[in-house]
Amino acid sequence: MSRVVKLAVIPGDGIGPEVIAEAEKVLDAATAGSSIRFEKTRYALGAGRFLETGDTLTDDDLDAIKDHDAILLGAVGGVPGDPRLKNANIERGLLLKLRFELDHYVNLRPSKLYPGVPGPLADPGDIDFVVVREGTEGPYVGNGGSIRTGTPHEVANETSVNTAFGVERVVRYAFDLAERRRKKLTLVHKTNVLVHAGGIWKRLVDEVAREHPDVTVDYVHVDAATIYLVTNPGRFDVIVTDNLFGDILTDLAGAVTGGIGLAASGNINPDGAFPSMFEPVHGSAPDIAGQQKADPTAAILSVSLLLDHLGLTDEAQRVTTAVEEDIATRSTATRSTAQIGDAIAARLQA
Amino acid sequence: MSRVVKLAVIPGDGIGPEVIAEAEKVLDAATAGSSIRFEKTRYALGAGRFLETGDTLTDDDLDAIKDHDAILLGAVGGVPGDPRLKNANIERGLLLKLRFELDHYVNLRPSKLYPGVPGPLADPGDIDFVVVREGTEGPYVGNGGSIRTGTPHEVANETSVNTAFGVERVVRYAFDLAERRRKKLTLVHKTNVLVHAGGIWKRLVDEVAREHPDVTVDYVHVDAATIYLVTNPGRFDVIVTDNLFGDILTDLAGAVTGGIGLAASGNINPDGAFPSMFEPVHGSAPDIAGQQKADPTAAILSVSLLLDHLGLTDEAQRVTTAVEEDIATRSTATRSTAQIGDAIAARLQA
Ligand SMILES: CC(C)[C@H](C(=O)O)[C@@H](O)C(=O)O
Ligand SMILES: CC(C)[C@H](C(=O)O)[C@@H](O)C(=O)O
Repeated sequence: MSRVVKLAVIPGDGIGPEVIAEAEKVLDAATAGSSIRFEKTRYALGAGRFLETGDTLTDDDLDAIKDHDAILLGAVGGVPGDPRLKNANIERGLLLKLRFELDHYVNLRPSKLYPGVPGPLADPGDIDFVVVREGTEGPYVGNGGSIRTGTPHEVANETSVNTAFGVERVVRYAFDLAERRRKKLTLVHKTNVLVHAGGIWKRLVDEVAREHPDVTVDYVHVDAATIYLVTNPGRFDVIVTDNLFGDILTDLAGAVTGGIGLAASGNINPDGAFPSMFEPVHGSAPDIAGQQKADPTAAILSVSLLLDHLGLTDEAQRVTTAVEEDIATRSTATRSTAQIGDAIAARLQA
Repeated sequence: MSRVVKLAVIPGDGIGPEVIAEAEKVLDAATAGSSIRFEKTRYALGAGRFLETGDTLTDDDLDAIKDHDAILLGAVGGVPGDPRLKNANIERGLLLKLRFELDHYVNLRPSKLYPGVPGPLADPGDIDFVVVREGTEGPYVGNGGSIRTGTPHEVANETSVNTAFGVERVVRYAFDLAERRRKKLTLVHKTNVLVHAGGIWKRLVDEVAREHPDVTVDYVHVDAATIYLVTNPGRFDVIVTDNLFGDILTDLAGAVTGGIGLAASGNINPDGAFPSMFEPVHGSAPDIAGQQKADPTAAILSVSLLLDHLGLTDEAQRVTTAVEEDIATRSTATRSTAQIGDAIAARLQA
């Protein structure tokens, strides 16, 4: 009996289609000969679609996407400064809309320094942590506005909204993850300044911690966390943090582990009410699009996260191992996007 | 005719008094024999004072401090987790209150990698930039609250407030500074997500840029900015950013330039309506307090910023040069806080 997984594929803009082509190649190789069949549907969403039709994400798009088991996304966003995109905001209208509408309350971003990967730190030590970034609240809610806009008397506000419901569920996820790892959880926030937003995070971490006496818990201000990421990243196991701090920390974490060409992420709805979405942390990089210069590794590692989320843990592990092996044998010779994808897929077929 | 400068000295908690003792030593050495006389008044503020009297910063304290030409501050804050400080919030009640009440709208934080300083980056290149962090608005305003606090239905909000008045004045300061430096200004924000708060910053930078055609202006998202700080910090000259992003970036910048033991800052009211305040970026580090282990260099470089702010540019330059010379000859032998201060002061007397 074969299992059919309905997968929505959103290649997106810029380097998105190139890296997704390799991710699909690896997905196919990892599941070839097994009883799992991926039924893929492609959705042409992104800046390109907006320029053609004026639509970012319609209700019909959203309904169609909801009717899948998972989503694989490349990257979305046009050329910075393109005047035709002036009023578009593909980020809010498409990417964040998907995360919010599909209730992706866990934004899972592992950071691991693979042996042999060159990075910016002189003495990085062992780096292997996961950021559990909240995905549906905080300063990302879009709860802002301005008055007297464009005048010398403008006031522009932006409100971070944090609910016990929203914070507790992601904190629980982070503790469960810590239980399966090195049993250490660090809350990152700025409680000394953002006393209300920080207070609810601190309270709920303290409360849930009581149910996990074997997990060591500490707290680090976001500014200090950036220092640790470059001086002692090995101190982290699971970091739980809000949407904005998670955004900042994971880009930095990607940089210290060899660049965001390797950083994968999952936007997860652990309840299974909506399909989860897997995407590289990097953007659409229009400046190098179509040149086969992009590293597809982050997209391929996102496939591993996707497989893991679907319960296909063996297949997930095989993809990660193939990537690790490929990375370990990387020389200074540059390979095209497709060459990297081919090499990793070949390891899975071997 | 001698000029008298009224200086308020707030040594504070933890290592504050130790590093301030050395900063004063260097201040005295730098101005000895000149026509400037510093008339110092000490204010015992901080966690220590709170524990003794229950006061953080009274109206009388504030009035007294206002009646000075400048302020030199060490660091404030008690032992983390001290139950007696549970409801204190020395940060908001003292440090931020001073910054807000004294309208320190420019938080000036230079980042320079001095020759010979060991840092975490394998290949740092030349690092020499200044972060102009807004000091009186943004997410720091304390405009938040919560309902159903402590229950499963809590909602905790925190509002970032940004005014054209407040943004324009700090942007103007940053452009003026860029004119006197390498003529490059980078706005850091998160305009793609925080569209209102980001929008007012973008608009005002674009507007003021028109008056400075010789300054090259670019924009970087805060997440990407952290990547640049570890992969290409040399790309920055003047960074202008909001209160929260500035807090995060300057800790990271301190780390990549050899640690916050070297990072100085000025909380400046450029209008001169209130005294400006100079302080190391580091905190009170209670764990090493009283042990002569703290590096007073950040406090001493803050004295250089203070002298510069008072128009004593020669004296300021002499302090910076003495610090640079001291740093260049540092060996791996550890020196006490006082030994470092003595060495730098001796160079000024020579
Ligand atoms: C593109 C942008 C909206 C997005 C974010 O801020 O979440 C990106 O930076 C990320 O981290 O996935
Ligand atoms: C102590 C804290 C309130 C302060 C800030 O966030 O501004 C500190 O981190 C700093 O950067 O001076």
